[in-house]
Amino acid sequence: MTDRGPAGNAELALLLEVAGTPKPGNVDRHRDLPDLRFEHFLAGAVGARGGLSMAAAGEPVGASFERAVAGMADQRGGNTQFGALLMLVPLVAATAEGGSGGEETPTPEAAATVVANTTVEDAAGFYRAFDHVDVFVDDPPEGADDLDVRRGGDAVPAVRERGVTLADVMELSAPRDGVAAEWTNGFERTFATAERLLDAEGPVLDRVADAFLALLAGEPDTLVAAQHGETVAAEVTDRATDLHDAPPAAVESFAEDLVASGINPGTTADVTAGGIFVALQRGLAV
Amino acid sequence: MTDRGPAGNAELALLLEVAGTPKPGNVDRHRDLPDLRFEHFLAGAVGARGGLSMAAAGEPVGASFERAVAGMADQRGGNTQFGALLMLVPLVAATAEGGSGGEETPTPEAAATVVANTTVEDAAGFYRAFDHVDVFVDDPPEGADDLDVRRGGDAVPAVRERGVTLADVMELSAPRDGVAAEWTNGFERTFATAERLLDAEGPVLDRVADAFLALLAGEPDTLVAAQHGETVAAEVTDRATDLHDAPPAAVESFAEDLVASGINPGTTADVTAGGIFVALQRGLAV
Repeated sequence: MTDRGPAGNAELALLLEVAGTPKPGNVDRHRDLPDLRFEHFLAGAVGARGGLSMAAAGEPVGASFERAVAGMADQRGGNTQFGALLMLVPLVAATAEGGSGGEETPTPEAAATVVANTTVEDAAGFYRAFDHVDVFVDDPPEGADDLDVRRGGDAVPAVRERGVTLADVMELSAPRDGVAAEWTNGFERTFATAERLLDAEGPVLDRVADAFLALLAGEPDTLVAAQHGETVAAEVTDRATDLHDAPPAAVESFAEDLVASGINPGTTADVTAGGIFVALQRGLAV
Repeated sequence: MTDRGPAGNAELALLLEVAGTPKPGNVDRHRDLPDLRFEHFLAGAVGARGGLSMAAAGEPVGASFERAVAGMADQRGGNTQFGALLMLVPLVAATAEGGSGGEETPTPEAAATVVANTTVEDAAGFYRAFDHVDVFVDDPPEGADDLDVRRGGDAVPAVRERGVTLADVMELSAPRDGVAAEWTNGFERTFATAERLLDAEGPVLDRVADAFLALLAGEPDTLVAAQHGETVAAEVTDRATDLHDAPPAAVESFAEDLVASGINPGTTADVTAGGIFVALQRGLAV
Protein backbone atom coordinates (compact mmCIF):
# COMPACT_ATOMS: atom_id res chain seq x y z
CA MET A 1 0.00 0.00 0.00
CA THR A 2 1.28 3.44 -0.88
CA ASP A 3 1.21 6.66 1.13
CA ARG A 4 1.07 8.67 -2.08
CA GLY A 5 -2.64 8.46 -2.88
CA PRO A 6 -4.12 9.71 -6.15
CA ALA A 7 -2.79 13.28 -5.80
CA GLY A 8 0.70 12.00 -5.07
CA ASN A 9 0.53 9.55 -7.95
CA ALA A 10 -0.55 12.35 -10.28
CA GLU A 11 2.39 14.44 -9.14
CA LEU A 12 4.72 11.48 -9.58
CA ALA A 13 3.29 10.95 -13.08
CA LEU A 14 4.34 14.51 -13.96
CA LEU A 15 7.83 13.82 -12.64
CA LEU A 16 8.24 10.46 -14.37
CA GLU A 17 6.93 11.96 -17.60
CA VAL A 18 9.53 14.72 -17.70
CA ALA A 19 12.32 12.38 -16.57
CA GLY A 20 11.65 9.72 -19.24
CA THR A 21 14.31 9.91 -21.93
CA PRO A 22 14.66 10.15 -24.88
CA LYS A 23 11.35 11.92 -25.39
CA PRO A 24 11.99 13.50 -28.78
CA GLY A 25 11.31 17.23 -28.91
CA ASN A 26 10.53 17.59 -25.21
CA VAL A 27 12.42 18.46 -22.07
CA ASP A 28 13.57 15.23 -20.49
CA ARG A 29 16.18 13.94 -18.09
CA HIS A 30 18.90 14.62 -20.66
CA ARG A 31 17.60 17.64 -22.53
CA ASP A 32 16.52 21.21 -21.83
CA LEU A 33 14.86 23.58 -24.26
CA PRO A 34 15.93 27.24 -24.42
CA ASP A 35 14.46 28.97 -21.33
CA LEU A 36 12.47 25.85 -20.40
CA ARG A 37 14.50 23.58 -18.21
CA PHE A 38 14.09 20.37 -16.26
CA GLU A 39 13.92 22.14 -12.90
CA HIS A 40 10.93 24.18 -14.07
CA PHE A 41 9.03 20.93 -14.49
CA LEU A 42 10.10 19.72 -11.03
CA ALA A 43 8.78 22.93 -9.46
CA GLY A 44 5.67 22.80 -11.66
CA ALA A 45 4.85 19.28 -10.47
CA VAL A 46 5.25 20.14 -6.79
CA GLY A 47 3.31 23.38 -7.22
CA ALA A 48 0.38 21.55 -8.83
CA ARG A 49 -0.08 19.31 -5.80
CA GLY A 50 -2.61 21.54 -4.02
CA GLY A 51 -4.99 21.49 -6.99
CA LEU A 52 -4.51 17.76 -7.52
CA SER A 53 -5.38 17.19 -3.86
CA MET A 54 -8.57 19.19 -4.34
CA ALA A 55 -9.54 16.93 -7.25
CA ALA A 56 -8.77 13.84 -5.18
CA ALA A 57 -10.99 15.17 -2.40
CA GLY A 58 -13.93 15.55 -4.77
CA GLU A 59 -13.76 19.33 -5.21
CA PRO A 60 -15.09 20.65 -8.54
CA VAL A 61 -12.93 19.88 -11.55
CA GLY A 62 -12.71 23.48 -12.79
CA ALA A 63 -11.62 24.95 -9.45
CA SER A 64 -9.14 22.09 -8.90
CA PHE A 65 -7.68 22.64 -12.35
CA GLU A 66 -7.35 26.39 -11.86
CA ARG A 67 -5.59 25.88 -8.53
CA ALA A 68 -3.27 23.24 -10.01
CA VAL A 69 -2.34 25.54 -12.90
CA ALA A 70 -1.76 28.52 -10.60
CA GLY A 71 0.56 26.41 -8.43
CA MET A 72 2.30 24.92 -11.45
CA ALA A 73 2.99 28.37 -12.83
CA ASP A 74 5.06 29.36 -9.80
CA GLN A 75 8.41 28.89 -11.56
CA ARG A 76 10.31 30.78 -14.20
CA GLY A 77 9.87 28.48 -17.19
CA GLY A 78 6.30 29.49 -18.05
CA ASN A 79 3.90 26.80 -19.17
CA THR A 80 5.31 23.45 -18.17
CA GLN A 81 2.31 21.22 -17.51
CA PHE A 82 -0.97 22.95 -18.41
CA GLY A 83 -2.01 20.20 -20.82
CA ALA A 84 -0.79 17.43 -18.56
CA LEU A 85 -2.90 18.84 -15.71
CA LEU A 86 -5.91 19.01 -17.99
CA MET A 87 -5.37 15.27 -18.52
CA LEU A 88 -4.76 14.48 -14.86
CA VAL A 89 -7.42 16.48 -13.04
CA PRO A 90 -10.44 14.55 -14.40
CA LEU A 91 -8.60 11.25 -13.93
CA VAL A 92 -7.78 12.13 -10.31
CA ALA A 93 -11.36 13.32 -9.80
CA ALA A 94 -12.53 9.96 -11.14
CA THR A 95 -10.79 8.18 -8.25
CA ALA A 96 -13.17 10.03 -5.91
CA GLU A 97 -16.15 9.15 -8.11
CA GLY A 98 -18.42 6.64 -6.30
CA GLY A 99 -17.27 3.01 -6.32
CA SER A 100 -14.71 1.44 -4.07
CA GLY A 101 -11.92 4.02 -4.29
CA GLY A 102 -9.65 1.03 -4.56
CA GLU A 103 -6.41 0.51 -6.43
CA GLU A 104 -8.20 -0.03 -9.73
CA THR A 105 -9.55 3.49 -9.93
CA PRO A 106 -9.96 5.48 -12.09
CA THR A 107 -12.04 3.31 -14.39
CA PRO A 108 -12.88 4.58 -17.88
CA GLU A 109 -16.52 4.71 -16.75
CA ALA A 110 -15.76 6.90 -13.75
CA ALA A 111 -13.66 9.21 -15.92
CA ALA A 112 -16.50 9.52 -18.43
CA THR A 113 -18.87 10.31 -15.56
CA VAL A 114 -16.61 13.08 -14.34
CA VAL A 115 -16.59 14.59 -17.82
CA ALA A 116 -20.36 14.25 -18.23
CA ASN A 117 -20.97 15.90 -14.85
CA THR A 118 -18.87 19.00 -15.50
CA THR A 119 -20.71 22.29 -15.16
CA VAL A 120 -20.63 25.84 -16.45
CA GLU A 121 -18.68 26.75 -13.31
CA ASP A 122 -16.08 24.13 -14.20
CA ALA A 123 -15.78 25.79 -17.61
CA ALA A 124 -15.31 29.14 -15.86
CA GLY A 125 -12.46 27.68 -13.77
CA PHE A 126 -10.86 26.31 -16.92
CA TYR A 127 -10.96 29.74 -18.57
CA ARG A 128 -9.59 31.45 -15.48
CA ALA A 129 -6.66 29.02 -15.48
CA PHE A 130 -5.41 30.73 -18.65
CA ASP A 131 -4.89 33.92 -16.61
CA HIS A 132 -2.09 32.24 -14.65
CA VAL A 133 0.22 31.22 -17.47
CA ASP A 134 0.89 31.87 -21.14
CA VAL A 135 -0.39 28.82 -23.06
CA PHE A 136 0.09 28.33 -26.78
CA VAL A 137 -3.31 27.79 -28.41
CA ASP A 138 -4.59 28.14 -31.93
CA ASP A 139 -7.48 30.36 -33.08
CA PRO A 140 -10.90 29.22 -31.86
CA PRO A 141 -13.37 27.49 -34.20
CA GLU A 142 -15.44 29.81 -36.41
CA GLY A 143 -18.30 31.47 -34.57
CA ALA A 144 -16.69 30.88 -31.16
CA ASP A 145 -14.56 33.99 -30.86
CA ASP A 146 -16.24 34.92 -27.59
CA LEU A 147 -15.13 31.54 -26.19
CA ASP A 148 -11.49 31.99 -27.22
CA VAL A 149 -9.53 30.52 -24.31
CA ARG A 150 -6.88 33.17 -24.81
CA ARG A 151 -9.37 35.63 -23.30
CA GLY A 152 -8.98 33.77 -19.99
CA GLY A 153 -11.29 34.96 -17.22
CA ASP A 154 -12.62 37.70 -19.54
CA ALA A 155 -14.50 35.00 -21.44
CA VAL A 156 -16.38 33.83 -18.35
CA PRO A 157 -19.48 36.05 -18.95
CA ALA A 158 -19.78 34.57 -22.46
CA VAL A 159 -19.32 31.07 -21.02
CA ARG A 160 -22.16 31.71 -18.56
CA GLU A 161 -24.38 33.34 -21.17
CA ARG A 162 -23.96 30.45 -23.59
CA GLY A 163 -24.30 27.97 -20.72
CA VAL A 164 -21.38 25.82 -21.90
CA THR A 165 -20.00 23.19 -19.54
CA LEU A 166 -16.37 22.15 -19.46
CA ALA A 167 -17.37 19.02 -21.40
CA ASP A 168 -18.87 21.30 -24.07
CA VAL A 169 -15.64 23.28 -24.26
CA MET A 170 -13.62 20.11 -24.66
CA GLU A 171 -15.95 18.88 -27.38
CA LEU A 172 -15.44 22.13 -29.24
CA SER A 173 -11.65 21.74 -29.00
CA ALA A 174 -11.39 17.99 -29.55
CA PRO A 175 -10.90 18.03 -33.35
CA ARG A 176 -7.71 20.06 -32.93
CA ASP A 177 -6.48 19.25 -29.44
CA GLY A 178 -5.34 15.79 -28.41
CA VAL A 179 -6.03 16.35 -24.71
CA ALA A 180 -9.59 17.55 -25.34
CA ALA A 181 -10.02 14.54 -27.63
CA GLU A 182 -9.22 12.27 -24.70
CA TRP A 183 -11.93 13.99 -22.65
CA THR A 184 -14.49 13.21 -25.35
CA ASN A 185 -13.43 9.67 -26.33
CA GLY A 186 -13.33 8.12 -22.85
CA PHE A 187 -9.57 8.63 -22.43
CA GLU A 188 -8.94 5.84 -24.89
CA ARG A 189 -5.27 6.48 -25.60
CA THR A 190 -4.64 7.22 -21.92
CA PHE A 191 -5.90 3.85 -20.72
CA ALA A 192 -4.13 2.07 -23.59
CA THR A 193 -0.89 3.78 -22.56
CA ALA A 194 -1.39 2.65 -18.97
CA GLU A 195 -1.71 -0.96 -20.12
CA ARG A 196 1.39 -0.59 -22.29
CA LEU A 197 3.37 0.72 -19.30
CA LEU A 198 2.15 -2.11 -17.06
CA ASP A 199 2.89 -4.80 -19.66
CA ALA A 200 6.41 -3.55 -20.42
CA GLU A 201 9.54 -4.62 -18.58
CA GLY A 202 12.61 -2.81 -17.39
CA PRO A 203 13.16 0.52 -15.64
CA VAL A 204 10.12 2.79 -15.51
CA LEU A 205 11.81 5.69 -17.29
CA ASP A 206 12.59 3.46 -20.29
CA ARG A 207 8.96 2.37 -20.38
CA VAL A 208 7.87 6.00 -20.31
CA ALA A 209 10.11 6.83 -23.27
CA ASP A 210 8.73 3.84 -25.22
CA ALA A 211 5.15 4.80 -24.42
CA PHE A 212 5.76 8.36 -25.57
CA LEU A 213 7.22 7.19 -28.87
CA ALA A 214 4.33 4.79 -29.45
CA LEU A 215 1.80 7.58 -28.87
CA LEU A 216 3.73 9.88 -31.21
CA ALA A 217 3.72 7.18 -33.89
CA GLY A 218 0.03 6.55 -33.37
CA GLU A 219 -1.39 9.99 -34.08
CA PRO A 220 -0.02 13.37 -35.20
CA ASP A 221 0.70 15.62 -32.23
CA THR A 222 -1.86 18.44 -32.15
CA LEU A 223 0.54 20.98 -30.62
CA VAL A 224 3.01 20.35 -33.45
CA ALA A 225 0.13 20.70 -35.93
CA ALA A 226 -0.97 24.00 -34.38
CA GLN A 227 2.56 25.41 -34.28
CA HIS A 228 4.07 24.02 -37.50
CA GLY A 229 1.16 22.80 -39.60
CA GLU A 230 -0.35 19.39 -40.27
CA THR A 231 2.28 18.40 -42.83
CA VAL A 232 5.07 18.72 -40.26
CA ALA A 233 2.99 16.90 -37.64
CA ALA A 234 2.41 14.03 -40.09
CA GLU A 235 6.12 13.87 -40.90
CA VAL A 236 6.99 13.63 -37.21
CA THR A 237 4.50 10.80 -36.78
CA ASP A 238 5.90 8.96 -39.80
CA ARG A 239 9.40 9.26 -38.46
CA ALA A 240 8.31 8.04 -35.02
CA THR A 241 6.65 5.05 -36.70
CA ASP A 242 9.88 4.18 -38.52
CA LEU A 243 11.70 4.22 -35.18
CA HIS A 244 9.67 1.36 -33.74
CA ASP A 245 12.29 -1.10 -32.44
CA ALA A 246 15.07 1.09 -33.83
CA PRO A 247 18.40 1.24 -31.97
CA PRO A 248 18.55 3.85 -29.17
CA ALA A 249 21.00 5.99 -31.16
CA ALA A 250 18.40 6.48 -33.90
CA VAL A 251 15.84 7.73 -31.38
CA GLU A 252 18.43 10.03 -29.81
CA SER A 253 19.20 11.46 -33.23
CA PHE A 254 15.48 12.05 -33.85
CA ALA A 255 15.32 13.79 -30.47
CA GLU A 256 18.20 16.10 -31.40
CA ASP A 257 16.60 16.92 -34.75
CA LEU A 258 13.28 17.91 -33.20
CA VAL A 259 14.90 20.13 -30.57
CA ALA A 260 17.04 21.77 -33.26
CA SER A 261 13.91 22.44 -35.36
CA GLY A 262 11.94 23.78 -32.39
CA ILE A 263 9.37 21.02 -32.78
CA ASN A 264 7.77 20.14 -29.43
CA PRO A 265 5.23 17.28 -29.36
CA GLY A 266 3.80 18.55 -26.10
CA THR A 267 0.32 17.04 -26.43
CA THR A 268 1.84 13.59 -26.73
CA ALA A 269 3.71 14.24 -23.49
CA ASP A 270 0.43 15.27 -21.84
CA VAL A 271 -1.29 12.02 -22.81
CA THR A 272 1.78 10.11 -21.63
CA ALA A 273 1.45 11.74 -18.20
CA GLY A 274 -2.18 10.63 -18.02
CA GLY A 275 -1.18 7.08 -18.90
CA ILE A 276 1.53 7.03 -16.25
CA PHE A 277 -0.96 8.17 -13.61
CA VAL A 278 -3.43 5.41 -14.44
CA ALA A 279 -0.60 2.86 -14.47
CA LEU A 280 0.59 4.01 -11.02
CA GLN A 281 -2.95 3.71 -9.70
CA ARG A 282 -3.06 0.16 -11.09
CA GLY A 283 0.13 -0.82 -9.34
CA LEU A 284 3.01 0.17 -11.62
CA ALA A 285 6.00 -0.10 -9.27
CA VAL A 286 8.77 2.48 -9.47
CA MET B 1 3.68 34.00 -3.05
CA THR B 2 3.95 30.27 -3.53
CA ASP B 3 1.32 27.55 -3.20
CA ARG B 4 3.99 25.07 -2.21
CA GLY B 5 4.37 25.89 1.48
CA PRO B 6 7.12 24.41 3.66
CA ALA B 7 6.19 20.77 2.95
CA GLY B 8 6.16 21.41 -0.78
CA ASN B 9 9.45 23.28 -0.62
CA ALA B 10 11.00 20.39 1.31
CA GLU B 11 9.81 17.97 -1.34
CA LEU B 12 11.12 20.26 -4.07
CA ALA B 13 14.45 20.43 -2.23
CA LEU B 14 14.71 16.63 -2.47
CA LEU B 15 13.97 16.81 -6.20
CA LEU B 16 16.41 19.64 -6.93
CA GLU B 17 19.08 17.89 -4.89
CA VAL B 18 18.91 14.68 -6.88
CA ALA B 19 18.63 16.55 -10.19
CA GLY B 20 21.70 18.77 -9.63
CA THR B 21 24.59 17.55 -11.74
CA PRO B 22 27.43 16.71 -11.59
CA LYS B 23 27.17 15.60 -7.95
CA PRO B 24 30.21 13.33 -7.77
CA GLY B 25 29.47 9.85 -6.42
CA ASN B 26 25.71 10.35 -6.18
CA VAL B 27 22.70 9.68 -8.34
CA ASP B 28 21.98 12.83 -10.30
CA ARG B 29 20.23 13.98 -13.44
CA HIS B 30 22.90 12.28 -15.55
CA ARG B 31 23.93 9.33 -13.45
CA ASP B 32 22.40 6.24 -11.86
CA LEU B 33 24.07 3.86 -9.46
CA PRO B 34 23.59 0.10 -9.80
CA ASP B 35 20.05 -0.70 -8.53
CA LEU B 36 19.56 2.88 -7.33
CA ARG B 37 18.15 5.04 -10.04
CA PHE B 38 16.88 8.55 -10.54
CA GLU B 39 13.22 7.49 -10.58
CA HIS B 40 13.58 5.94 -7.12
CA PHE B 41 14.45 9.39 -5.79
CA LEU B 42 11.47 10.95 -7.58
CA ALA B 43 9.11 8.43 -5.98
CA GLY B 44 10.91 8.80 -2.64
CA ALA B 45 10.40 12.56 -2.65
CA VAL B 46 6.69 12.31 -3.47
CA GLY B 47 6.21 9.52 -0.92
CA ALA B 48 7.79 11.61 1.84
CA ARG B 49 5.27 14.41 1.41
CA GLY B 50 2.80 13.11 3.98
CA GLY B 51 5.40 13.12 6.76
CA LEU B 52 6.73 16.50 5.69
CA SER B 53 3.20 17.89 5.87
CA MET B 54 2.88 16.54 9.41
CA ALA B 55 6.05 18.39 10.39
CA ALA B 56 4.77 21.58 8.76
CA ALA B 57 1.54 21.25 10.72
CA GLY B 58 3.41 21.08 14.01
CA GLU B 59 3.07 17.34 14.60
CA PRO B 60 5.87 15.73 16.65
CA VAL B 61 9.22 15.48 14.89
CA GLY B 62 9.70 11.76 15.52
CA ALA B 63 6.28 10.72 14.21
CA SER B 64 6.63 13.04 11.21
CA PHE B 65 10.04 11.60 10.42
CA GLU B 66 8.83 8.01 10.69
CA ARG B 67 5.90 8.73 8.37
CA ALA B 68 8.17 10.52 5.87
CA VAL B 69 10.60 7.60 5.83
CA ALA B 70 7.83 5.02 5.45
CA GLY B 71 6.43 6.96 2.49
CA MET B 72 9.88 7.49 0.98
CA ALA B 73 10.58 3.77 1.17
CA ASP B 74 7.67 2.93 -1.15
CA GLN B 75 9.88 2.41 -4.21
CA ARG B 76 12.27 -0.30 -5.31
CA GLY B 77 15.59 1.48 -4.82
CA GLY B 78 15.79 1.08 -1.04
CA ASN B 79 17.16 3.97 0.99
CA THR B 80 17.05 7.07 -1.16
CA GLN B 81 16.53 9.95 1.26
CA PHE B 82 16.66 8.81 4.90
CA GLY B 83 19.43 11.23 5.79
CA ALA B 84 17.95 14.06 3.75
CA LEU B 85 14.65 13.65 5.60
CA LEU B 86 16.48 13.69 8.93
CA MET B 87 17.83 17.08 7.80
CA LEU B 88 14.51 18.38 6.50
CA VAL B 89 12.01 17.34 9.15
CA PRO B 90 13.38 19.58 11.96
CA LEU B 91 13.82 22.45 9.49
CA VAL B 92 10.22 22.09 8.30
CA ALA B 93 9.06 21.77 11.91
CA ALA B 94 10.93 25.02 12.66
CA THR B 95 8.69 26.87 10.19
CA ALA B 96 5.76 26.02 12.48
CA GLU B 97 7.72 27.10 15.55
CA GLY B 98 6.22 30.28 17.01
CA GLY B 99 7.09 33.53 15.24
CA SER B 100 5.55 34.92 12.11
CA GLY B 101 5.55 31.81 9.94
CA GLY B 102 6.69 34.16 7.18
CA GLU B 103 9.04 33.67 4.27
CA GLU B 104 12.13 33.97 6.43
CA THR B 105 11.45 30.82 8.41
CA PRO B 106 13.08 28.62 9.49
CA THR B 107 15.51 30.72 11.48
CA PRO B 108 18.54 29.04 13.07
CA GLU B 109 16.99 29.89 16.44
CA ALA B 110 13.72 28.15 15.63
CA ALA B 111 15.59 25.10 14.36
CA ALA B 112 17.62 24.96 17.57
CA THR B 113 14.40 25.20 19.58
CA VAL B 114 12.90 22.28 17.67
CA VAL B 115 15.98 20.20 18.48
CA ALA B 116 15.99 21.24 22.14
CA ASN B 117 12.30 20.38 22.50
CA THR B 118 12.54 16.84 21.12
CA THR B 119 11.30 14.13 23.46
CA VAL B 120 11.82 10.47 24.22
CA GLU B 121 8.80 9.75 22.00
CA ASP B 122 10.55 11.57 19.13
CA ALA B 123 13.54 9.30 19.67
CA ALA B 124 11.20 6.28 19.54
CA GLY B 125 9.81 7.49 16.19
CA PHE B 126 13.33 7.91 14.87
CA TYR B 127 14.23 4.33 15.84
CA ARG B 128 11.03 2.95 14.34
CA ALA B 129 11.88 4.68 11.05
CA PHE B 130 14.74 2.19 10.65
CA ASP B 131 12.16 -0.61 10.40
CA HIS B 132 10.94 0.80 7.06
CA VAL B 133 14.16 0.78 5.09
CA ASP B 134 17.67 -0.64 5.12
CA VAL B 135 20.02 2.21 6.11
CA PHE B 136 23.78 1.91 6.15
CA VAL B 137 25.08 2.83 9.60
CA ASP B 138 28.28 2.13 11.48
CA ASP B 139 28.60 0.39 14.84
CA PRO B 140 27.24 2.40 17.78
CA PRO B 141 29.58 4.15 20.24
CA GLU B 142 31.00 1.97 23.00
CA GLY B 143 28.51 1.27 25.79
CA ALA B 144 25.53 2.13 23.59
CA ASP B 145 24.83 -1.25 22.01
CA ASP B 146 21.26 -1.20 23.31
CA LEU B 147 20.75 2.07 21.42
CA ASP B 148 22.09 0.69 18.13
CA VAL B 149 19.81 2.23 15.52
CA ARG B 150 20.05 -0.97 13.48
CA ARG B 151 17.78 -2.53 16.10
CA GLY B 152 15.00 -0.22 14.88
CA GLY B 153 11.80 -0.39 16.90
CA ASP B 154 13.32 -3.17 19.06
CA ALA B 155 15.50 -0.53 20.69
CA VAL B 156 12.51 1.55 21.83
CA PRO B 157 12.27 -0.04 25.31
CA ALA B 158 15.95 0.80 25.90
CA VAL B 159 15.33 4.34 24.58
CA ARG B 160 12.49 4.75 27.07
CA GLU B 161 14.42 3.18 29.94
CA ARG B 162 17.41 5.42 29.39
CA GLY B 163 15.10 8.41 28.83
CA VAL B 164 17.04 9.65 25.81
CA THR B 165 15.47 12.31 23.62
CA LEU B 166 16.02 12.58 19.88
CA ALA B 167 18.43 15.45 20.58
CA ASP B 168 20.39 13.09 22.88
CA VAL B 169 20.54 10.47 20.14
CA MET B 170 21.82 13.04 17.65
CA GLU B 171 24.44 14.22 20.10
CA LEU B 172 25.64 10.64 20.49
CA SER B 173 25.93 10.28 16.70
CA ALA B 174 27.29 13.73 15.87
CA PRO B 175 31.00 12.89 15.98
CA ARG B 176 30.58 10.37 13.18
CA ASP B 177 27.47 11.52 11.29
CA GLY B 178 27.33 14.79 9.41
CA VAL B 179 23.53 15.07 9.61
CA ALA B 180 23.50 14.54 13.37
CA ALA B 181 26.28 17.11 13.60
CA GLU B 182 23.99 19.67 11.96
CA TRP B 183 21.34 18.94 14.59
CA THR B 184 23.82 19.73 17.35
CA ASN B 185 25.62 22.73 15.83
CA GLY B 186 22.58 24.83 14.91
CA PHE B 187 22.51 23.63 11.28
CA GLU B 188 25.55 25.76 10.56
CA ARG B 189 26.54 24.24 7.22
CA THR B 190 22.88 24.08 6.16
CA PHE B 191 22.27 27.79 6.60
CA ALA B 192 25.64 28.63 5.01
CA THR B 193 24.67 26.49 2.01
CA ALA B 194 21.36 28.32 1.72
CA GLU B 195 23.18 31.66 1.57
CA ARG B 196 25.57 30.27 -1.03
CA LEU B 197 22.64 29.14 -3.19
CA LEU B 198 20.91 32.51 -2.85
CA ASP B 199 24.09 34.48 -3.65
CA ALA B 200 24.98 32.41 -6.72
CA GLU B 201 23.78 33.11 -10.25
CA GLY B 202 22.59 30.94 -13.09
CA PRO B 203 20.28 27.94 -13.29
CA VAL B 204 19.32 26.43 -9.96
CA LEU B 205 20.65 22.97 -10.79
CA ASP B 206 24.11 24.40 -11.49
CA ARG B 207 24.00 26.20 -8.15
CA VAL B 208 23.05 22.93 -6.44
CA ALA B 209 26.01 21.15 -8.01
CA ASP B 210 28.36 23.96 -6.91
CA ALA B 211 26.97 23.92 -3.38
CA PHE B 212 27.42 20.15 -3.15
CA LEU B 213 31.04 20.39 -4.28
CA ALA B 214 31.75 23.20 -1.81
CA LEU B 215 30.33 21.13 1.07
CA LEU B 216 32.34 18.10 -0.03
CA ALA B 217 35.49 20.21 -0.10
CA GLY B 218 34.70 21.68 3.30
CA GLU B 219 34.51 18.52 5.40
CA PRO B 220 35.04 14.79 4.85
CA ASP B 221 31.77 13.01 4.11
CA THR B 222 30.82 10.86 7.09
CA LEU B 223 29.09 8.19 4.98
CA VAL B 224 32.25 7.78 2.91
CA ALA B 225 34.26 7.58 6.15
CA ALA B 226 31.94 4.90 7.57
CA GLN B 227 31.97 2.84 4.38
CA HIS B 228 35.55 3.28 3.16
CA GLY B 229 37.52 4.69 6.10
CA GLU B 230 38.68 8.15 7.05
CA THR B 231 41.67 8.11 4.71
CA VAL B 232 39.46 7.69 1.66
CA ALA B 233 37.04 10.34 2.96
CA ALA B 234 39.95 12.77 3.38
CA GLU B 235 41.21 12.02 -0.14
CA VAL B 236 37.76 12.73 -1.59
CA THR B 237 37.64 16.04 0.25
CA ASP B 238 41.14 16.98 -0.96
CA ARG B 239 40.18 16.21 -4.53
CA ALA B 240 36.96 18.21 -4.24
CA THR B 241 39.02 21.12 -2.90
CA ASP B 242 41.35 20.97 -5.90
CA LEU B 243 38.31 21.16 -8.18
CA HIS B 244 37.27 24.60 -6.94
CA ASP B 245 36.83 26.66 -10.13
CA ALA B 246 38.04 23.72 -12.22
CA PRO B 247 36.59 23.22 -15.70
CA PRO B 248 33.36 21.19 -15.82
CA ALA B 249 35.12 18.28 -17.51
CA ALA B 250 37.38 17.84 -14.47
CA VAL B 251 34.36 17.63 -12.16
CA GLU B 252 32.67 15.16 -14.51
CA SER B 253 35.79 13.01 -14.47
CA PHE B 254 35.84 13.09 -10.64
CA ALA B 255 32.17 12.06 -10.70
CA GLU B 256 32.93 9.08 -12.94
CA ASP B 257 35.82 8.01 -10.71
CA LEU B 258 33.72 8.03 -7.55
CA VAL B 259 30.89 6.04 -9.13
CA ALA B 260 33.42 3.53 -10.50
CA SER B 261 34.94 3.15 -7.01
CA GLY B 262 31.56 2.81 -5.32
CA ILE B 263 32.20 5.93 -3.25
CA ASN B 264 28.95 7.70 -2.39
CA PRO B 265 29.17 10.99 -0.44
CA GLY B 266 25.58 10.67 0.67
CA THR B 267 25.81 12.77 3.82
CA THR B 268 27.00 15.73 1.77
CA ALA B 269 23.92 15.30 -0.44
CA ASP B 270 21.74 15.30 2.68
CA VAL B 271 23.15 18.60 3.91
CA THR B 272 22.76 20.01 0.40
CA ALA B 273 19.05 19.13 0.49
CA GLY B 274 18.68 20.98 3.79
CA GLY B 275 20.40 24.03 2.32
CA ILE B 276 18.15 24.01 -0.75
CA PHE B 277 15.06 23.90 1.47
CA VAL B 278 16.15 26.92 3.51
CA ALA B 279 17.04 28.78 0.30
CA LEU B 280 13.59 28.05 -1.19
CA GLN B 281 11.95 29.31 1.99
CA ARG B 282 14.02 32.48 1.69
CA GLY B 283 12.91 33.08 -1.87
CA LEU B 284 15.24 31.12 -4.14
CA ALA B 285 13.38 31.19 -7.46
CA VAL B 286 13.36 28.10 -9.66
